[in-house]
Amino acid sequence: MIDRKTKELIEAVARGEMSPGEALRALGDTPPEDLGFARVDHSRGARQVLPEIVFAQGKEPDEVLRIMQVLLERSGLAIASRVDPDTAGLLSGEMPGGVWHGRARIFVAGAAGEDGEAAGGHVALLTAGSSDIPVAEEAGTILEVLGVTVSRFFDIGVSGIHRLGEVVDRIRQASVCIVCAGMDAALPSVVGGLFRGPVIAVPVSTGYGAAFGGVSALLSCLNSCSPGVTVMNIDNGVGAAAAALRILRGSA
Amino acid sequence: MIDRKTKELIEAVARGEMSPGEALRALGDTPPEDLGFARVDHSRGARQVLPEIVFAQGKEPDEVLRIMQVLLERSGLAIASRVDPDTAGLLSGEMPGGVWHGRARIFVAGAAGEDGEAAGGHVALLTAGSSDIPVAEEAGTILEVLGVTVSRFFDIGVSGIHRLGEVVDRIRQASVCIVCAGMDAALPSVVGGLFRGPVIAVPVSTGYGAAFGGVSALLSCLNSCSPGVTVMNIDNGVGAAAAALRILRGSA
Amino acid sequence: MIDRKTKELIEAVARGEMSPGEALRALGDTPPEDLGFARVDHSRGARQVLPEIVFAQGKEPDEVLRIMQVLLERSGLAIASRVDPDTAGLLSGEMPGGVWHGRARIFVAGAAGEDGEAAGGHVALLTAGSSDIPVAEEAGTILEVLGVTVSRFFDIGVSGIHRLGEVVDRIRQASVCIVCAGMDAALPSVVGGLFRGPVIAVPVSTGYGAAFGGVSALLSCLNSCSPGVTVMNIDNGVGAAAAALRILRGSA
Amino acid sequence: MIDRKTKELIEAVARGEMSPGEALRALGDTPPEDLGFARVDHSRGARQVLPEIVFAQGKEPDEVLRIMQVLLERSGLAIASRVDPDTAGLLSGEMPGGVWHGRARIFVAGAAGEDGEAAGGHVALLTAGSSDIPVAEEAGTILEVLGVTVSRFFDIGVSGIHRLGEVVDRIRQASVCIVCAGMDAALPSVVGGLFRGPVIAVPVSTGYGAAFGGVSALLSCLNSCSPGVTVMNIDNGVGAAAAALRILRGSA
Amino acid sequence: MIDRKTKELIEAVARGEMSPGEALRALGDTPPEDLGFARVDHSRGARQVLPEIVFAQGKEPDEVLRIMQVLLERSGLAIASRVDPDTAGLLSGEMPGGVWHGRARIFVAGAAGEDGEAAGGHVALLTAGSSDIPVAEEAGTILEVLGVTVSRFFDIGVSGIHRLGEVVDRIRQASVCIVCAGMDAALPSVVGGLFRGPVIAVPVSTGYGAAFGGVSALLSCLNSCSPGVTVMNIDNGVGAAAAALRILRGSA
Amino acid sequence: MIDRKTKELIEAVARGEMSPGEALRALGDTPPEDLGFARVDHSRGARQVLPEIVFAQGKEPDEVLRIMQVLLERSGLAIASRVDPDTAGLLSGEMPGGVWHGRARIFVAGAAGEDGEAAGGHVALLTAGSSDIPVAEEAGTILEVLGVTVSRFFDIGVSGIHRLGEVVDRIRQASVCIVCAGMDAALPSVVGGLFRGPVIAVPVSTGYGAAFGGVSALLSCLNSCSPGVTVMNIDNGVGAAAAALRILRGSA
Amino acid sequence: MIDRKTKELIEAVARGEMSPGEALRALGDTPPEDLGFARVDHSRGARQVLPEIVFAQGKEPDEVLRIMQVLLERSGLAIASRVDPDTAGLLSGEMPGGVWHGRARIFVAGAAGEDGEAAGGHVALLTAGSSDIPVAEEAGTILEVLGVTVSRFFDIGVSGIHRLGEVVDRIRQASVCIVCAGMDAALPSVVGGLFRGPVIAVPVSTGYGAAFGGVSALLSCLNSCSPGVTVMNIDNGVGAAAAALRILRGSA
Amino acid sequence: MIDRKTKELIEAVARGEMSPGEALRALGDTPPEDLGFARVDHSRGARQVLPEIVFAQGKEPDEVLRIMQVLLERSGLAIASRVDPDTAGLLSGEMPGGVWHGRARIFVAGAAGEDGEAAGGHVALLTAGSSDIPVAEEAGTILEVLGVTVSRFFDIGVSGIHRLGEVVDRIRQASVCIVCAGMDAALPSVVGGLFRGPVIAVPVSTGYGAAFGGVSALLSCLNSCSPGVTVMNIDNGVGAAAAALRILRGSA
Repeated sequence: MIDRKTKELIEAVARGEMSPGEALRALGDTPPEDLGFARVDHSRGARQVLPEIVFAQGKEPDEVLRIMQVLLERSGLAIASRVDPDTAGLLSGEMPGGVWHGRARIFVAGAAGEDGEAAGGHVALLTAGSSDIPVAEEAGTILEVLGVTVSRFFDIGVSGIHRLGEVVDRIRQASVCIVCAGMDAALPSVVGGLFRGPVIAVPVSTGYGAAFGGVSALLSCLNSCSPGVTVMNIDNGVGAAAAALRILRGSA
Repeated sequence: MIDRKTKELIEAVARGEMSPGEALRALGDTPPEDLGFARVDHSRGARQVLPEIVFAQGKEPDEVLRIMQVLLERSGLAIASRVDPDTAGLLSGEMPGGVWHGRARIFVAGAAGEDGEAAGGHVALLTAGSSDIPVAEEAGTILEVLGVTVSRFFDIGVSGIHRLGEVVDRIRQASVCIVCAGMDAALPSVVGGLFRGPVIAVPVSTGYGAAFGGVSALLSCLNSCSPGVTVMNIDNGVGAAAAALRILRGSA
Repeated sequence: MIDRKTKELIEAVARGEMSPGEALRALGDTPPEDLGFARVDHSRGARQVLPEIVFAQGKEPDEVLRIMQVLLERSGLAIASRVDPDTAGLLSGEMPGGVWHGRARIFVAGAAGEDGEAAGGHVALLTAGSSDIPVAEEAGTILEVLGVTVSRFFDIGVSGIHRLGEVVDRIRQASVCIVCAGMDAALPSVVGGLFRGPVIAVPVSTGYGAAFGGVSALLSCLNSCSPGVTVMNIDNGVGAAAAALRILRGSA
Repeated sequence: MIDRKTKELIEAVARGEMSPGEALRALGDTPPEDLGFARVDHSRGARQVLPEIVFAQGKEPDEVLRIMQVLLERSGLAIASRVDPDTAGLLSGEMPGGVWHGRARIFVAGAAGEDGEAAGGHVALLTAGSSDIPVAEEAGTILEVLGVTVSRFFDIGVSGIHRLGEVVDRIRQASVCIVCAGMDAALPSVVGGLFRGPVIAVPVSTGYGAAFGGVSALLSCLNSCSPGVTVMNIDNGVGAAAAALRILRGSA
Repeated sequence: MIDRKTKELIEAVARGEMSPGEALRALGDTPPEDLGFARVDHSRGARQVLPEIVFAQGKEPDEVLRIMQVLLERSGLAIASRVDPDTAGLLSGEMPGGVWHGRARIFVAGAAGEDGEAAGGHVALLTAGSSDIPVAEEAGTILEVLGVTVSRFFDIGVSGIHRLGEVVDRIRQASVCIVCAGMDAALPSVVGGLFRGPVIAVPVSTGYGAAFGGVSALLSCLNSCSPGVTVMNIDNGVGAAAAALRILRGSA
Repeated sequence: MIDRKTKELIEAVARGEMSPGEALRALGDTPPEDLGFARVDHSRGARQVLPEIVFAQGKEPDEVLRIMQVLLERSGLAIASRVDPDTAGLLSGEMPGGVWHGRARIFVAGAAGEDGEAAGGHVALLTAGSSDIPVAEEAGTILEVLGVTVSRFFDIGVSGIHRLGEVVDRIRQASVCIVCAGMDAALPSVVGGLFRGPVIAVPVSTGYGAAFGGVSALLSCLNSCSPGVTVMNIDNGVGAAAAALRILRGSA
Repeated sequence: MIDRKTKELIEAVARGEMSPGEALRALGDTPPEDLGFARVDHSRGARQVLPEIVFAQGKEPDEVLRIMQVLLERSGLAIASRVDPDTAGLLSGEMPGGVWHGRARIFVAGAAGEDGEAAGGHVALLTAGSSDIPVAEEAGTILEVLGVTVSRFFDIGVSGIHRLGEVVDRIRQASVCIVCAGMDAALPSVVGGLFRGPVIAVPVSTGYGAAFGGVSALLSCLNSCSPGVTVMNIDNGVGAAAAALRILRGSA
Repeated sequence: MIDRKTKELIEAVARGEMSPGEALRALGDTPPEDLGFARVDHSRGARQVLPEIVFAQGKEPDEVLRIMQVLLERSGLAIASRVDPDTAGLLSGEMPGGVWHGRARIFVAGAAGEDGEAAGGHVALLTAGSSDIPVAEEAGTILEVLGVTVSRFFDIGVSGIHRLGEVVDRIRQASVCIVCAGMDAALPSVVGGLFRGPVIAVPVSTGYGAAFGGVSALLSCLNSCSPGVTVMNIDNGVGAAAAALRILRGSA
């Protein structure tokens, strides 16, 4: 795997212009820390715009705690998603100052750094129904923790299309629009027709019967008749936040 | 299988109040005519609101012709759906006076009777895109042949939601609304929120990729967030016409 | 979004024929009430034939209570579906006079208004098996609360087709037929062949193995060989009631 | 792999009661004949009730011819299914006396033997619609070639349930009932409730949209509300004939 | 619905050869008994070979009890399937003499009649693995209660094909073969090649991952390379028993 | 449907500060032009960042031509996608100066306007294999027509991960990354880990067997282990271009 | 079923060169031991490279115990997979010396024999994320118990592709590579491009939404763009161990 | 991306022990050759055991030709799969000495090198039916071109399980077993129980109805009750050859 950068570094070391140590540091990779059951990736923030977020579901509470502690110690910020109340109780006890966002199932310890990159941006966060709010808040909480302004527009589904009419001007003030919708997921298409900027659709696993755990909503989003609507996995609020951050800060 | 009617007829014949022949006629069934490869059901119009419509796809052209001729002779009206140009050519040649509706793929010979039942009713026929029109016209052509007024509103998908705003008042003048939509099929939900009467959604197999031949649209329609939207099979324009006729004339 | 009505109102206000307030009232929209976690839509009854029904499943009991109280205060009638016994206990305690229909999982507080619209109509309600009754009663209870006469014909599946024979005359006295069926869902097709009026098929998630949670029944209904049978989502009794009301009262 | 029979044969040979050749003949296996591209199994008739039937679809016409010739030479009867017109032309030219059953897509050369086993049995063969007939005839033709009496009842779908009433007594005269149905495949359930004997349901890939190439019909058959209805693969007329022969002659 | 029998009865009554009561009795239908939540079909045994079996899963224990009591009183035999331990406890307490077959999840009260029809027949019952036994016993228990001899061959899957070799001669002594298999369900095909008589395959929902709750096994059974293997729904032991009874006694 | 803007306009007209005509123009909507079979939406460019693109597949060539001519006349630019060679031939003959991009199946007539909005932006366009290039070029051609710089990196799939290493620095110079991949679609995840900015994954319907027409690739993209990768419909190159334009120009 | 070996044995016995007993022993089959609910196959090790492993999930704890005791007594080694803590507790109490590998859900009693076959081999065991470790350990624990050296490389998913770079040389020292991955399962393709030897991909049911319980990962593995990657069932760690053993020892 | 090898090379260059050019050569990567529409990977043979094989399906014939010519010129061997007769005609004309294997749809130009690696190995190649032969030959032809001995056992499906008995001893002489099977794909399980070495199952898309293009066979293979059977994508003969080569030569 010889990328151009490596090639240039080899040549620079050969010319004596650089020491091997400098060459390695120039590549900027901090090796991931091996906890035995997980490798914590501290350099992720540098390569990507989102710090590593611990997906707590399916992990033992004390595993979650240990990863969170390592993350907090190194970077000053630790975030976990899909945190159930029991795990949240453990984290709250062991990580004083941590905050439990119950509806979003997000636990946050520490805070984002004060550098310029962490500040700014404005995202409009919409849901079609009230059942879609937990997924939306998963995205919204993370964005706010990382310094993004979030405007919420909940329960404005298309069966009462006039609810959308009231808020369209305010939506247009944001740079990015995240739309969470289950069932027929018609809202992303309608929003995509009214909003010029990037629209990130998050299908939600609400509904019953032929909603098929969000598949109906997912297919609607993928087949949106408004061109350029992008789609996340079902219920993937963290992913929507990450996609918004890529847009807001990726080229910074 | 002893229903009450049969029981009463047996008793009436026993009491001498009725002859066996009268009893049979009272049951009102004309036996279906057996063509060898199909049993043509002339009494369908009496039991149902839709005359038998020949589904031409997958049948040999001369089979279609023969069934059409039998239907026409008996009832004065013969309709075939999914008629391809070759079959249409044969039918046009052999059934002078027949009309070929190319876009709707419908062939009609003869005309509906002049009785009161055949007249009246007003259906609004909407499509989300221009690709949905053939399915819509399958419904629209049949309804018009049977005396229903049809108002067409084509290509008014939700990505340009203002197109719908222009026509909502005219749609509200109809008794029944048929909405044909492919891809994300968001239109039936929006219409269902604006129109109080019965809404019949017809998912259309347009689109590509994850449209899955209309499955995405079908699921959207079934999961409509507007309550009471009813759904037909994919591309089933004939069924939508029948459903509208059941509403308009079923209780007449 | 300039519909014709808005255009005329602008011109009328310009001509001094109408005050801005009158124009707004003429558009007839009462803004939805924002509860933070839900926007309660009081004008729904005016635009649609069904009052807003609270889908309790997946909501916190006290959320359900709060929405029900707001609905009751404003309109005199509050209905919730998919109410489990715990939530029903809370509602019964806090909303004296409310009634809990256990089999239908429906809670009703208050009563429908006495205006002409709320009265009348006759629906035949059929189930193929006894397992389909809860879904049927979800529809039946709502219809009765809203003043519709409901005739029940339960457990008359097609494997004992003579059971249907006994009741076909009584079914024909209704204006609309709702048929709830799981497994092979053969009943809607049989009923569709015997009943001229609108048939609303509700696939039910009974059965096991290749019943796939109602998918088999759903596909049977969509592919009904009786033309014009319309289909609701799996287990969607509320939707069937709404569809029936659209037919009975939508054009009133 | 030492089954009891082998064990006894080894001991019998050891006791001198049997020669090795006799032991081998006692096991009754004629080794299959290797044509390079297929092993023709002449002993199948002995082990099973159905002679090997060549599935012509996807084979080269001359491959089909060569297998048919080998089968005919050895057993006096050769049958091929899914034979398209081109292959039928070749077979007709090369195998004089062979008969091409176009609708059933079956080609037959030679005749079944005159032994007792080959004679007798009565199967009722039903289809719901006229499109299901090719599949039904695939079964019917094979059964007739092998000496079974076949009574045909075509196009008696449940939307006109009275068509079935006319023929139920005649159906009851058969020992086995094969029911071919597409779309909602409601007919097998209805027949299963009226006929005490074995019912073999064959789902047919007719229909469109959510018929999904016979999947809807297949699921209906598997979920039949009449207990004991057995199911074949979609369009599998040959299999239905084989299943009927297993019942009629398997224990002879 | 005028079938020939009804027609002849009407004419016989008209000729005075028969009284209305005799005509009704001649049709032989005992009306089903309506329990409010279920119509118990006492004449099922006459029309079909299997008495009505109560599917207990999803029913309230006291509903199961009440239906069982009615069935027992009328016919002397009541059978329920999918009975969990709690329901079994209630039934055992209220129906002394009833027997709980725990592995088969079957509860039986009373006994089959002593008439000739109830006696006889021999079924071979095979499973591929030990996990398939509960489904097999559901079939086996019912068959034994109704007087059929059942030979069990359990855990003889094809990965140890020699296990089958040991028992093939004994299997061949039965008239019908029921094969229960999960995962790859290869056993029905192997059995179908060794056994001339009717083979009823029951796919079982054992396995994990891509077993998909029995779908893999179901598809294997439907695509069996041994012609004439018939298939039941996943885990449907009751259905397999019914299918065997249709073969053994349907034409008696 | 009273949005705030409409409300303010009504009041402004009432105060005499604005004429009705001005109010209408202020809303900025040019009514779509009705061609009978399609409504051409000239104001789309204003509301959205992508001009209307004609989806030629499934349309008659002369329909495509007529829509293209209308678009060209009004806006100076007309683009059609999924144009087959026959349609391209017609368009080339009737629209001199038009250009046919065969690999991308795009036809372009006219050119984008010279205003500031139309210029600028840099997109990296990657494909995993050479079969994915037509989908990629559908996006790339549209982007270039609209003034975006496109850097192409084709056939750099992960089985030869060193191919990616060579180009990663050049990819990082773009603002947005579009990744087209079929089969296992592993490339978007790898790119998402190396590129900080927005990544738009386009699953491609290449491959065979369990590729299922792009479903495998679609699921891989949705489940990308790199957070924030957004997904388009299968083969939806036009959509990817639109999504990139929303990001590059949506907030301009 | 006359294989050549049986044929030769029959002839050898006939020639007096072998006694019947010797012939039977020569076939080398120890009949499986019938426990009533399971046939324990002691000769499996001889015919296959993996001893029989008890799949504990879905079995009663005392059934698992009894089978384990029989296996241990006969062969000196008993292994159970998918052992939950309760069953593990019972086994630990009743089988002193047994070891419970909690993360792998494997219980081992006894030890593999000391013969040459049981020793040697080197497998590299990789996971993409930390959630995939239990599946990987199911394979790793079994391999180690049977004497294979296992090198673990966990949590090296492709979104941080540099993690793989660190370990690629060590991976190349193994003979076989097992790669466990959920979600987009991109890792097997990347490994397949870097490792020349056999790669066994195990899709894992981690993830949510459109991960569909491992189906997304399964399809990715099947469609790997690295040729020759083989695939196991979802979460099938036991199978991966068996596949590795077939490669390492199958031809020994 | 700093792997250990790169790190050591950097240090070696710094110590003057190695020139930059030597460092690059030591990494052993020949940059892929860019043809515009494809990057031809000449170093693949070094990193993997299979030379790059051109997948001709979906490529233009002259594209296939050009890639083949480049491959031949560089390595002396060029192989294309899924070559239709037209493309084969072009290749035969332009690449004299090339050989067209029609049944396998493989075109081979040149020959494998004479080095030790290219020689040796023995694979048993089985098919269940004659329709599976083209897929099997795709694997077999490639293996033979690369110097592997291939023993073919075709058309030995499990419905005539005795066919397998005849050949089991000869199968056991191979090191690897490839089993191609469609429909119920029961053969891999049976073979897996008789053969100790690695078994590579290739599901084949033969069959009809619920065979679903090979999905039924794929699921059977994945759920094989013989542990350690590995699975390839549907119809993926090339992949099976590659998997066999990884086993035979990967660790050489």
